[in-house]
Amino acid sequence: MRTGVWLIGARGSVAATSVIGALALRAGLTDPTGCVTELPELHSPELPGLGDLVFGGHDISSNPLVKKADTLAAAGVVPAWLVRALSDELATVEQELRPVPDAGNQAAMADLIGADLIDFQRRHDLDRVVVINVSTTEAAPEPHPAHADLGALEAELARSQTLLPPSSLFAYAAFRAGCPYVDFTPSTGARLPALDQLARRQRLPYGGHDGKTGETLVKSVLAPMFALRNLRVRTWSGINLLGGGDGANLAEPAPNAAKTASKQRVLAETLGYVPQGTTRIDYLEDVGDFKTAWDMVTFEGFLGVPMRMEFTWHGCDSALAAPLVLDLARLTAAAHRAGRSGPLSELAFFFKDPFGSESHALAEQWRVLRGFVAGLGAEDPA
Amino acid sequence: MRTGVWLIGARGSVAATSVIGALALRAGLTDPTGCVTELPELHSPELPGLGDLVFGGHDISSNPLVKKADTLAAAGVVPAWLVRALSDELATVEQELRPVPDAGNQAAMADLIGADLIDFQRRHDLDRVVVINVSTTEAAPEPHPAHADLGALEAELARSQTLLPPSSLFAYAAFRAGCPYVDFTPSTGARLPALDQLARRQRLPYGGHDGKTGETLVKSVLAPMFALRNLRVRTWSGINLLGGGDGANLAEPAPNAAKTASKQRVLAETLGYVPQGTTRIDYLEDVGDFKTAWDMVTFEGFLGVPMRMEFTWHGCDSALAAPLVLDLARLTAAAHRAGRSGPLSELAFFFKDPFGSESHALAEQWRVLRGFVAGLGAEDPA
Amino acid sequence: MRTGVWLIGARGSVAATSVIGALALRAGLTDPTGCVTELPELHSPELPGLGDLVFGGHDISSNPLVKKADTLAAAGVVPAWLVRALSDELATVEQELRPVPDAGNQAAMADLIGADLIDFQRRHDLDRVVVINVSTTEAAPEPHPAHADLGALEAELARSQTLLPPSSLFAYAAFRAGCPYVDFTPSTGARLPALDQLARRQRLPYGGHDGKTGETLVKSVLAPMFALRNLRVRTWSGINLLGGGDGANLAEPAPNAAKTASKQRVLAETLGYVPQGTTRIDYLEDVGDFKTAWDMVTFEGFLGVPMRMEFTWHGCDSALAAPLVLDLARLTAAAHRAGRSGPLSELAFFFKDPFGSESHALAEQWRVLRGFVAGLGAEDPA
Amino acid sequence: MRTGVWLIGARGSVAATSVIGALALRAGLTDPTGCVTELPELHSPELPGLGDLVFGGHDISSNPLVKKADTLAAAGVVPAWLVRALSDELATVEQELRPVPDAGNQAAMADLIGADLIDFQRRHDLDRVVVINVSTTEAAPEPHPAHADLGALEAELARSQTLLPPSSLFAYAAFRAGCPYVDFTPSTGARLPALDQLARRQRLPYGGHDGKTGETLVKSVLAPMFALRNLRVRTWSGINLLGGGDGANLAEPAPNAAKTASKQRVLAETLGYVPQGTTRIDYLEDVGDFKTAWDMVTFEGFLGVPMRMEFTWHGCDSALAAPLVLDLARLTAAAHRAGRSGPLSELAFFFKDPFGSESHALAEQWRVLRGFVAGLGAEDPA
Ligand SMILES: NC(=O)c1ccc[n+]([C@@H]2O[C@H](COP(=O)([O-])OP(=O)(O)OC[C@H]3O[C@@H](n4cnc5c(N)ncnc54)[C@H](O)[C@@H]3O)[C@@H](O)[C@H]2O)c1
Ligand SMILES: NC(=O)c1ccc[n+]([C@@H]2O[C@H](COP(=O)([O-])OP(=O)(O)OC[C@H]3O[C@@H](n4cnc5c(N)ncnc54)[C@H](O)[C@@H]3O)[C@@H](O)[C@H]2O)c1
Ligand SMILES: NC(=O)c1ccc[n+]([C@@H]2O[C@H](COP(=O)([O-])OP(=O)(O)OC[C@H]3O[C@@H](n4cnc5c(N)ncnc54)[C@H](O)[C@@H]3O)[C@@H](O)[C@H]2O)c1
Ligand SMILES: NC(=O)c1ccc[n+]([C@@H]2O[C@H](COP(=O)([O-])OP(=O)(O)OC[C@H]3O[C@@H](n4cnc5c(N)ncnc54)[C@H](O)[C@@H]3O)[C@@H](O)[C@H]2O)c1
Ligand code: NA
Ligand code: NA
Repeated sequence: MRTGVWLIGARGSVAATSVIGALALRAGLTDPTGCVTELPELHSPELPGLGDLVFGGHDISSNPLVKKADTLAAAGVVPAWLVRALSDELATVEQELRPVPDAGNQAAMADLIGADLIDFQRRHDLDRVVVINVSTTEAAPEPHPAHADLGALEAELARSQTLLPPSSLFAYAAFRAGCPYVDFTPSTGARLPALDQLARRQRLPYGGHDGKTGETLVKSVLAPMFALRNLRVRTWSGINLLGGGDGANLAEPAPNAAKTASKQRVLAETLGYVPQGTTRIDYLEDVGDFKTAWDMVTFEGFLGVPMRMEFTWHGCDSALAAPLVLDLARLTAAAHRAGRSGPLSELAFFFKDPFGSESHALAEQWRVLRGFVAGLGAEDPA
Repeated sequence: MRTGVWLIGARGSVAATSVIGALALRAGLTDPTGCVTELPELHSPELPGLGDLVFGGHDISSNPLVKKADTLAAAGVVPAWLVRALSDELATVEQELRPVPDAGNQAAMADLIGADLIDFQRRHDLDRVVVINVSTTEAAPEPHPAHADLGALEAELARSQTLLPPSSLFAYAAFRAGCPYVDFTPSTGARLPALDQLARRQRLPYGGHDGKTGETLVKSVLAPMFALRNLRVRTWSGINLLGGGDGANLAEPAPNAAKTASKQRVLAETLGYVPQGTTRIDYLEDVGDFKTAWDMVTFEGFLGVPMRMEFTWHGCDSALAAPLVLDLARLTAAAHRAGRSGPLSELAFFFKDPFGSESHALAEQWRVLRGFVAGLGAEDPA
Repeated sequence: MRTGVWLIGARGSVAATSVIGALALRAGLTDPTGCVTELPELHSPELPGLGDLVFGGHDISSNPLVKKADTLAAAGVVPAWLVRALSDELATVEQELRPVPDAGNQAAMADLIGADLIDFQRRHDLDRVVVINVSTTEAAPEPHPAHADLGALEAELARSQTLLPPSSLFAYAAFRAGCPYVDFTPSTGARLPALDQLARRQRLPYGGHDGKTGETLVKSVLAPMFALRNLRVRTWSGINLLGGGDGANLAEPAPNAAKTASKQRVLAETLGYVPQGTTRIDYLEDVGDFKTAWDMVTFEGFLGVPMRMEFTWHGCDSALAAPLVLDLARLTAAAHRAGRSGPLSELAFFFKDPFGSESHALAEQWRVLRGFVAGLGAEDPA
Repeated sequence: MRTGVWLIGARGSVAATSVIGALALRAGLTDPTGCVTELPELHSPELPGLGDLVFGGHDISSNPLVKKADTLAAAGVVPAWLVRALSDELATVEQELRPVPDAGNQAAMADLIGADLIDFQRRHDLDRVVVINVSTTEAAPEPHPAHADLGALEAELARSQTLLPPSSLFAYAAFRAGCPYVDFTPSTGARLPALDQLARRQRLPYGGHDGKTGETLVKSVLAPMFALRNLRVRTWSGINLLGGGDGANLAEPAPNAAKTASKQRVLAETLGYVPQGTTRIDYLEDVGDFKTAWDMVTFEGFLGVPMRMEFTWHGCDSALAAPLVLDLARLTAAAHRAGRSGPLSELAFFFKDPFGSESHALAEQWRVLRGFVAGLGAEDPA
């Protein structure tokens, strides 16, 4: 199964780390640490090989990929010797990166994006291309009636430059070009009724939202622990200190609000009530991609006794995200092949703010994911 | 179902908190926070009511229960007003506490222990009595061939004062008196082949070992998190600072060794390898029952990037343990009634070092526990 | 030396804890833990005795002092038995609390405040009254030219209701009534040129700003440690989680800004440069007066090696503040007696944002304070 | 002032980092971050220049210095490019490293050691050579009467192989060769009455013990903070997780005991009482030189309210130690030149377990150090 992976934000940290990692894995230069689909429990002949993935993407930046790789190496996110060893392969991927097309209206822009996707698929003779959004988190868009109806949306797009936020325009273009779409960010992406209609019409699956890589990952195992022990969480407060492009953007109030909302949801849904407290995100240039999150949880036990727990998480965000991007590419490609369309709620394991009403408890999400992979072979491939 | 709960170490912190809590629940003076069997998912008509439990027990100490309750109140483990409100009920339980019987050999001691149990059951017209060991953690005993064979054991007991450690002598006496036995401590208890033979012959279930209330509880959700994300844990080190009777005892090398062994097991079994690091227990009189545990985990992600996590847990040990003691009494009584005999591996959710080869991941243990409770009605009651 | 202590915000947590503590000390019911002036190094016959202090104050609330004391006891800030033991003494202090006077303009209000002070001093035959502001933190006031000139200020006050923020109006009234003034809050207080003119004209000393009780106290010893070791602090970020009246107020943007500014100042002044990072204050009702502060410091050592430090501080704010309020009352009374006027920069030890250009390093501030106390006897008493 | 620095343990991590750092500073390739003697307050023409130091040393290992440098670079302790840039200079220092001489008795060994020192001084035409012990921490030696008397010691040395531990034999040899001696480790070194007699007879100064680089450094500012605020420290417990050669050695019971004793001393001496708790050192190979220390402090405030503080310190031990080794070389050379002999209590700022009864508070030690440096010019140079 020849599978393309088209990254929106292809010159960013997560994208570049994903590409470097996939190339390193193909060349046998690293282990698949962090790749969930390499665990024995998820082994399946239905998944494309990690070495079969072919990369391309859009970005508004023109910073060369190899320069980005050097920056990541200097910051300790990827080993410097690996970047040197892969310089030829990186130059090859560089050929597949495109600027974000511009045009007079969003309908025309979508056509140009779609043309890039189809061209990529043809040139590489790919069975399918999975589009994955790893670009800068957007603010939530202004609501518009055309978001709820595909007909209205298509009529309006030809007249507007701003009807859809970029993430949704990419989803729209992807679906029109026959490509599944995954949103690794908290941006709107495919999360509009009109786009869901389009995906289903095109028989395409889509996934999201917001890769679960740090504090929220920990929350998704600690919150169930308190719940299963019938301990009452009274407060849960946290702060995330991060630099890098993502950190700089999340220092802006609107994306910050989008992100922190998606970070607290796991608590309400797992515990069944909303404890006091908020999650903050602060930009701290100097720490770069090596985020620190601190959380304090106060809880009540038998006879009302007050207790507390604290944790500090020092994770390298891009290194945590990149293997999941590869996992999502493989799983979404297999879902497409298996004929799935609409939101892939079974991928909740990967996301802070997943589709569907499934559990926010990591262990339960894992069971669902295992079932999904096990069932892949059973369905009739499209 | 009239159910007796016979506590070995009945004047200790865990025992007293369990009794105070059960009395408070019966009187409607508190919520069942911390009681797992009160979660809707474990609701079952097969479990005895919390208000139906009748308490008695053995202890080598003669400190009055109500004095222990005052000590716990002064330390903030239980509310002072609750102790005042329950003074009559505590005095009633006091009538059911017995000194540990002494005799010339362990066979005679077992007879006296058994007589106390049978007397308790008759006087209160109980359907059954569950014996739960919450006494001081022992050192591991000297191995002896008679531990492996019931016949040899019975022959030898009449000649010895030390063949069995106290926890195992209580298990032996309980089984002979027709009582299921649960070990909430890391002591040997029923964990000898000869005692297993006895339990099966008597058609009695038993459970253990070592209630999972703090650091190990957290480990049992964090270790699976790392495993499911295919992140490689390199080191896991921790320190537990605790006072109280348990802390003083665990400052002794032999019980300390027993305890720390049971604390690291979860890592090896969940991760499939043994990370570097140890777990320490240090006695710190001043913190009393309010234990602090600090753990540091270093791990490796994609492309070998080093990351780390730390957590601090400030829990009140007795308040975490007591509701589980009540849960175990209910569940073991129901298992007995359902005709189960031998080790109850389905209770792994509650223990650091559970019977059976089941998973050490809390979420998986929870599923097994749910299945166990759901299946209770289906079996033919004994 | 009979000394009055007039508290602005006398029904608040800090004020009530100060009063309870002073009464308990006088009655021999507690130790002077937390009282700096009780250290042998600061012993001086020039300081009024802790037992000699007489309390009164203003507050906009009418919540009885004894009710506040009960609330503090329920929250664990003061022992419940102590509140019971002191109920008569608290009722006596209750007689000395006054509502904040209201009038048509601030000049008239100042007259009424001053009348309360003079009445208090006469009735108790006090040598002097120290006014200490422990009321709710205000937003920074609108600048006004009259703030810079005493003549203009006095002219304008008769026409305005808002020219001075409350803290400054109290300082003005105190100075006019011949009373030294201390601001334990970050509010403006005496920090206006016109008020400094008034204090000097009246030959009165004043002190402030913002009692240093938690995170900033720790900063004032850690920042010098990095500086003395020539280690380069790259980032210093923190978050404070607190409830109570102070927490609720600091959740408002304007007082929050006033407070966080005073919290970072110590870094810039001790290190000689401004590291990245900010200090946040978040309201968390449930933790009440038991604040948690978490700080992360990243720093650079020899050959540029990156290192880091984290700390968590769980302090009871009112219990940390109250003994300092008593210290400040004693020290300011002695300064007044010794004939000092203008800002007391020697009290920098107590404040986040002290007067004068003295060091922000705690140890240096201690030396200055010792010198101040040692010199008290030498000066000619007024 | 041409100054030699002779390192005992010259192929270890601290030694190699010191040498690399000094060479880098001389070449203008790095900043003196971490070097205390480069702070403006300690500037003095009496100190030899950092670039004037000439290095040599003894070690029982024969691992080439440049190989050690590569290991340190791979571990992130020193930058790899720096090691490459300094390879010639490192090869030059390699020429000055000597195996530890062996002979039939300790008197003969001391002669050989002394010969190495004198040869080094002659060949480089050095004004003086400071001997600094940075070798593996020893167990405390068996007490022996000859330790207390120089005559007895000299008589006995000719008959014994084990009378002195290595650190003391090096001190003896250094003094006999006219060299000042500094012990950066907790080993015995010059801390024997007989050696003090020898140093004074030779008019030589000496310094020690145990460089203060991490947890104890933090303690030396936090303990005074609690003391100055009259807060009562109830418990202070800590754990140090470290790898590297030092960590491996400190995992052995005897050196571990020597080290932890020197780590708690600061508390007793600063607070005036001994709080509960201990400091542990655990070997954790994987963390290498990047030690993590965690400390928990519980304390009591006004009216007995319990509070607590925790800190985590992630420091690179060799990078923290190396600049202090350079500082000590400069300061001790200047003290020698100024005619000082006997223990240099003014260097307490650098040590966990300093000579003399001076304060353990860092700020006070700093003042003493400043006074010492300021006074250097005043004394008559020897
Ligand atoms: N790293 C993680 O752990 C993690 C977890 C969850 C979500 N995310 C999300 O992943 C995204 C990427 O993170 P990052 O650290 O790589 O950020 P980054 O700033 O390094 O990269 C973002 C890239 O997107 C590009 N971009 C911006 N707007 C674009 C547009 N309209 N079209 C195409 N490209 C555009 C930028 O030029 C940049 O190259 C963020 O939205 C982040 O919130 C990351
Ligand atoms: N509290 C928790 O969270 C927790 C978790 C897991 C296991 N445990 C275990 O539970 C046990 C009880 O803990 P605790 O805090 O109540 O301790 P504790 O010291 O307060 O109580 C122990 C009691 O056992 C009694 N005892 C000692 N030897 C006995 C004997 N031979 N026969 C009968 N009684 C005896 C003692 O007199 C004492 O009253 C310990 O073994 C502890 O390790 C506790
Ligand atoms: N507790 C600490 O550690 C600490 C440290 C530094 C500064 N402070 C400052 O001390 C002040 C008091 O803190 P708290 O915890 O007692 O708060 P609190 O809310 O319990 O008490 C404040 C009191 O001030 C009264 N008040 C409000 N406006 C007033 C006015 N105009 N005139 C008179 N009274 C007025 C309120 O009615 C209340 O009784 C705050 O400004 C706080 O920032 C406290
Ligand atoms: N790094 C710090 O922050 C720090 C702080 C205080 C004290 N110290 C002490 O400094 C010493 C060195 O630490 P390190 O990390 O460099 O350890 P290391 O293990 O890397 O180096 C010790 C060196 O000493 C050598 N050695 C051992 N016995 C010897 C002997 N008898 N004669 C000569 N050489 C001998 C070893 O071969 C090795 O090269 C230790 O004693 C440590 O406790 C270090
Ligand atoms: Na921490
Ligand atoms: Na912490």
